[in-house]
Amino acid sequence: MKISARNRLKGKIIEVTKGATTAHVRIEVAGGAVVTASITNESVDELGLAVGGEAYAVVKASDVMVAVD
Amino acid sequence: MKISARNRLKGKIIEVTKGATTAHVRIEVAGGAVVTASITNESVDELGLAVGGEAYAVVKASDVMVAVD
Amino acid sequence: MKISARNRLKGKIIEVTKGATTAHVRIEVAGGAVVTASITNESVDELGLAVGGEAYAVVKASDVMVAVD
Amino acid sequence: MKISARNRLKGKIIEVTKGATTAHVRIEVAGGAVVTASITNESVDELGLAVGGEAYAVVKASDVMVAVD
Amino acid sequence: MKISARNRLKGKIIEVTKGATTAHVRIEVAGGAVVTASITNESVDELGLAVGGEAYAVVKASDVMVAVD
Amino acid sequence: MKISARNRLKGKIIEVTKGATTAHVRIEVAGGAVVTASITNESVDELGLAVGGEAYAVVKASDVMVAVD
Repeated sequence: MKISARNRLKGKIIEVTKGATTAHVRIEVAGGAVVTASITNESVDELGLAVGGEAYAVVKASDVMVAVD
Repeated sequence: MKISARNRLKGKIIEVTKGATTAHVRIEVAGGAVVTASITNESVDELGLAVGGEAYAVVKASDVMVAVD
Repeated sequence: MKISARNRLKGKIIEVTKGATTAHVRIEVAGGAVVTASITNESVDELGLAVGGEAYAVVKASDVMVAVD
Repeated sequence: MKISARNRLKGKIIEVTKGATTAHVRIEVAGGAVVTASITNESVDELGLAVGGEAYAVVKASDVMVAVD
Repeated sequence: MKISARNRLKGKIIEVTKGATTAHVRIEVAGGAVVTASITNESVDELGLAVGGEAYAVVKASDVMVAVD
Repeated sequence: MKISARNRLKGKIIEVTKGATTAHVRIEVAGGAVVTASITNESVDELGLAVGGEAYAVVKASDVMVAVD
């Protein structure tokens, strides 16, 4: 499946924290930055996300803001 | 100003394309990935965004998805 | 690629309108409803989206609201 | 109230799961697809959402992505 | 129609700017702040949005960030 | 840090409710309206958000819808 979302950052999962309904998945991407994704617990299970696994952080362009110092 | 958005990726602006109302700003972040942001033309002007400038791509955790191969 | 986004509605593209930077793609999904997606022109080109083609409307669960009459 | 969000899919609520703060509501829409919404527990209470009730899944066009096989 | 989106700010439309596909609508809300909405041109037409009209800025709770000085 | 997000509403925090992973922060903004933000527990801690504190509700323009009666 190819998706229109412009932004895909490859990395390694370093943390998966499930809540009651919502999970936080932290991915260390190339360059060393850590990206946090807030997704459903169901997605974590369905995709088999676990610490150490390779994954992409995916973001639609309209959800990206720009900041300057 | 400190903001709750979890994700801030530092990089250099490599392209700014203004449309009629919406601009696309492309930032090359650490590690070499390019992140595209779709923001208002007004923000581009107000922040003085231009090719070569340093900037951050900022994303709220609830707007990040996770994908696996 | 498998993605965490919970919602995937299969359908047929019935309209593609490119703007200066932002395109609108309309997909008629199963059941006859029409879903409008606002995406970048670049995505339209890269995915080769055109009227008559099969496509999915994909939405993250945190972007879905619920309404009642 | 009329709202600018382009996408409204009518259906029947088949599951409501409340978490600590965030609830998941699943709606079976026309055509048989199931749409998952992640909303606040407060909204579930205020709108009286319950299994079997009629409801709409509502999505802003800028939150819809397009995918192809 | 009642919608799950938590945030509704009542105000008066002070500017409507249509682009090629995307419009910007600015609403002066109670207290004097101005809120900018980026919506489709079609929504502007369908809702008959025009300067001087009363309108609400509506935002889903998961799209609100918090910042401190 | 200056950010592209168009909308910043200043106010006072009137409620902070932490869930398992997701917190709800309610801010009473100028004019008396209350804005609810759904953010990560980590952000609440990192920004030191607490009842009585001053804060801004920040929203990207593409996440704002418009409604009329």
